[in-house]
Amino acid sequence: MSDILVVGSLAYDSIETPSGRVARALGGSANYFSLAASLYAKVRVVGVVGEDYEEADYKLLKDRGVDLEGLEKVPGKTFHWEGKYEGDMNEAKTLRTELNVFEHFNPKLPESYKNSSFVFLANIVPALQMEVLNQVKNPQFVGMDTMNLWIDIANADLLKVLKKVDVILINETEAEMLTGAANAIEAAAKIVELGPKAVVIKRGEYGFIMYSKEEGYFVLPAFPIAKVTDPTGAGDTFAGGFFGYLASRPSKPTVKDMKQACIYGSIMASHTIQDFSVKALAKTTIADIEKRMAEYKKVITI
Amino acid sequence: MSDILVVGSLAYDSIETPSGRVARALGGSANYFSLAASLYAKVRVVGVVGEDYEEADYKLLKDRGVDLEGLEKVPGKTFHWEGKYEGDMNEAKTLRTELNVFEHFNPKLPESYKNSSFVFLANIVPALQMEVLNQVKNPQFVGMDTMNLWIDIANADLLKVLKKVDVILINETEAEMLTGAANAIEAAAKIVELGPKAVVIKRGEYGFIMYSKEEGYFVLPAFPIAKVTDPTGAGDTFAGGFFGYLASRPSKPTVKDMKQACIYGSIMASHTIQDFSVKALAKTTIADIEKRMAEYKKVITI
Repeated sequence: MSDILVVGSLAYDSIETPSGRVARALGGSANYFSLAASLYAKVRVVGVVGEDYEEADYKLLKDRGVDLEGLEKVPGKTFHWEGKYEGDMNEAKTLRTELNVFEHFNPKLPESYKNSSFVFLANIVPALQMEVLNQVKNPQFVGMDTMNLWIDIANADLLKVLKKVDVILINETEAEMLTGAANAIEAAAKIVELGPKAVVIKRGEYGFIMYSKEEGYFVLPAFPIAKVTDPTGAGDTFAGGFFGYLASRPSKPTVKDMKQACIYGSIMASHTIQDFSVKALAKTTIADIEKRMAEYKKVITI
Repeated sequence: MSDILVVGSLAYDSIETPSGRVARALGGSANYFSLAASLYAKVRVVGVVGEDYEEADYKLLKDRGVDLEGLEKVPGKTFHWEGKYEGDMNEAKTLRTELNVFEHFNPKLPESYKNSSFVFLANIVPALQMEVLNQVKNPQFVGMDTMNLWIDIANADLLKVLKKVDVILINETEAEMLTGAANAIEAAAKIVELGPKAVVIKRGEYGFIMYSKEEGYFVLPAFPIAKVTDPTGAGDTFAGGFFGYLASRPSKPTVKDMKQACIYGSIMASHTIQDFSVKALAKTTIADIEKRMAEYKKVITI
């Protein structure tokens, strides 16, 4: 089992969906990622929170054995995101983003983190993703996420990071935006031309596309969920399940491993969306994952 | 091998997509359906065309062994649809619909059609779907399609037909509209409560969901196509492939057969969208289907 370093946000989210609303509930890419990945591997978090960050929210990760040495607490308030889903549950409408302590975030890796084998650069400004990656001595497998904002305002930096990673996990609309492709199938093939060995395009309720230089397309639907309560964090959960599975394997990830990892990510994400914030994910056990995996195999097999 | 009766439109379509445009090209649900289904089974068409319907367009079906005894030619012009795709290739914007000879269409079945085992009621006004179905003596397996317009203005009639069919093949947005469900997964489960044994929800580039009372969900992605030239007719092609496969089987369709049939429908539809009008579909051979089927299995398997 290898260690996974993740850099990303720890946040409080205020979310409205057709199922209801929550105010200042735990969120952030690093939280979703860590909760998912820690079921299968040792996770190390790099991030920043404010003075309002609650003890119970630290404890949630600590109880999963997550290493929080790289999680700084600084004066000010924790990153706060306010969003709403209506109609299209695949895309949130951002109502407000308060960067707070995240605004001057300058990630410094603890010595003990620098030997991490797996690195996941969750969605933060590309220059910081690069700074974190540069501090890791000899990473074996690196992944990244990104978002429309960075594609727009930090494109050159983003393309530099893209050349350094093994895989990018990205949303469908963002994949099209990054490449100018008319659809996700075309986008996938174009993205591997930009550097990574493989790309995973997350399609929300429709599942995912993985495309690798080595083996081409691998496409599967999402596990069918009739009632989506809150899609927030599904993508970060996917990444966490994906990395958790890979880091639990005895050897360096092959394309075949990555395909299996997509299924783990997808199944974990199907749990996340069944309740607000990290509530459903935090309760999800390995037994739950294995059970749903078996159901999923029936759903996709004649 | 059994006979399939299809009732639907034979049309000329004027279509604009990001790949170009065609004017008065062959279209209509019965044409797409018949071209697909006739690769595997004997098809009988019920429909109406105007005096402008071209000899070459009859010939296209005749050369495939399609029975056109039930295809009337009447004074006036053939049904004409004008549509445009931009951005979202899963949904056409209708610019103009000229019903022409279709307006007073009153389907009468030739005697020789009345013993058909398989019946597909393509997207026409529900009252006519019922009228056609009532003329078939002892159908073994009946399917239907429908559209937003009938859900809206002929809902009661539509629900009556739905009680008489084994399967409905329907678009994602229309499935949600029909049931008031928030997503296609929820819609699928609600639709079988309305009568049919199974429902197939067509999700365009995302593939399909089949849901049966007997075995629950069967969900798969579409075959990956990087360049979609014209999505028109993909749904009718799907239905044609689905019915063609089922009618080619030695016994009455099981749920397992229907799952396999979905894959045939999906693979055929992936050909249709690669050129305008029926151009790609008309050239597609059984060998092409089998080849792509093998590629598809690789795409969805680790």
